[in-house]
Amino acid sequence: MCAPKIVQIAHDRAAAPTRRGFLGAVGAAALAVTAAPARAEPAPSIPAGARVVDLTHPLGPALPTWPGTPPFTVVPVSWHASGGFAQNALAYWEHSGTHLDAPVHRIPDGASTDRVPASDLVAPLVVVDISARAATDPDAALTVADLDRWQRAHGPIPSRAFVAVYSGWEHRLGDPAAFLNLDAAGTPRAPGIEPEAAEHLIAEHDVVGLGVDTLSLDHGRSRDYAAHTVVLGAGRYGVEMLAGLATVPPSGATVVVGAPKHIGGTGGPCRVLALV
Amino acid sequence: MCAPKIVQIAHDRAAAPTRRGFLGAVGAAALAVTAAPARAEPAPSIPAGARVVDLTHPLGPALPTWPGTPPFTVVPVSWHASGGFAQNALAYWEHSGTHLDAPVHRIPDGASTDRVPASDLVAPLVVVDISARAATDPDAALTVADLDRWQRAHGPIPSRAFVAVYSGWEHRLGDPAAFLNLDAAGTPRAPGIEPEAAEHLIAEHDVVGLGVDTLSLDHGRSRDYAAHTVVLGAGRYGVEMLAGLATVPPSGATVVVGAPKHIGGTGGPCRVLALV
Repeated sequence: MCAPKIVQIAHDRAAAPTRRGFLGAVGAAALAVTAAPARAEPAPSIPAGARVVDLTHPLGPALPTWPGTPPFTVVPVSWHASGGFAQNALAYWEHSGTHLDAPVHRIPDGASTDRVPASDLVAPLVVVDISARAATDPDAALTVADLDRWQRAHGPIPSRAFVAVYSGWEHRLGDPAAFLNLDAAGTPRAPGIEPEAAEHLIAEHDVVGLGVDTLSLDHGRSRDYAAHTVVLGAGRYGVEMLAGLATVPPSGATVVVGAPKHIGGTGGPCRVLALV
Repeated sequence: MCAPKIVQIAHDRAAAPTRRGFLGAVGAAALAVTAAPARAEPAPSIPAGARVVDLTHPLGPALPTWPGTPPFTVVPVSWHASGGFAQNALAYWEHSGTHLDAPVHRIPDGASTDRVPASDLVAPLVVVDISARAATDPDAALTVADLDRWQRAHGPIPSRAFVAVYSGWEHRLGDPAAFLNLDAAGTPRAPGIEPEAAEHLIAEHDVVGLGVDTLSLDHGRSRDYAAHTVVLGAGRYGVEMLAGLATVPPSGATVVVGAPKHIGGTGGPCRVLALV
């Protein structure tokens, strides 16, 4: 669990409109969480002969969404017989399918989709597998101990990586009710990220973003969405409902997050490709 | 201009629902246009220390769209004070902003966005500059002669490249009427691609896709949309309204097309990143 003071700071940040106020508070707590500056840093090099692996679910009305979110809607507005071209109108809530969480999703003055730096969208891909725990505990979450274990096995987490948590949850997609796994209170019970692990990845490894294969960065026991607050409060982005994380190696691949770029967006469907 | 027989074949293909029929006709015309098979080919290698350059316009209601298309619409559906998270509903026609044309946009049985191979979305980037001609001729179009000239200057066009045409048209974006440049009949007069050049790039260089910085693969003089038909009829994709093509080199970069992946989509906004 997150230390109460840190959670409180993150929540103040989620409620308070100034970045300066948050950073001041973070400084007072001696945290090394930093805002993501505008960067023109080099992208990671990609091995010659890399394969492209798609980490994106096909998006449609049957794909589970967070409770209360309407289904993705497609309405044909032109078709071949009407003028030679087919086209659809789309209507949906931003946080549908494999999708980005921009900082403003949680943080009032956080970056919207059009202000997430493009240089943050290409990064070394780190995949941490917590599927064994998630098989028996639907609230399983990435911990700092998992990161230590990963580094012992695979070496140091690269700077400015994108860290994705593989819980195996997508195997439930054949049964949307099992994927959502709502408890008696209507809360999805699914794996996610401990806020402390998110803080550690930002402070110690300067990650560009974090991803999960479930509907939320926060695990099902969370009542305060503190993983969202930590990640987005530090100017990093999240990606939820990633696909195929078991088909890429734990280290050595590069991820390209084809994030949406609409003005004022809080997130949206994105094409996530791994170069392996 | 495209040879009449080839244009007729392409048009038959746009009207006829079977790929086999098209390929048979193409074979009879001794064209080497081939369907894009499912491939697991390696991605191009990317130079160490590559920079990420964003080739995507920020998408919003003010961005010009093809005549008759409604503006991109954003409606807030939750906000921080209502539960700690902001989220918008989006409603728009697929061919808005920097966007993909999937084969089914033109071809009744063509691939939809969820069936464009991911391996086609990472490719060597070739940028052909026709801006000098476009400065005086709004209907300027990429020709086979332009491709010959490009190869004399920059070497062979790599196999399975993505070829983008830079016309400089984005400089008109400050004045949407100048960007659209409608003639008396209401037709946009803007640069594009000669169908013959598209055929040449597919037959001789096996391009994965073609892009323009205008609203249409077809130039303003076209009355039959033959460039669309050639490109999409061969199972390749188009990208329209690319941004920033003058900021990337003519050769040597790699493009990642963050294409949408909704089921049955004819296209949609995409995040296009160049690794330079």
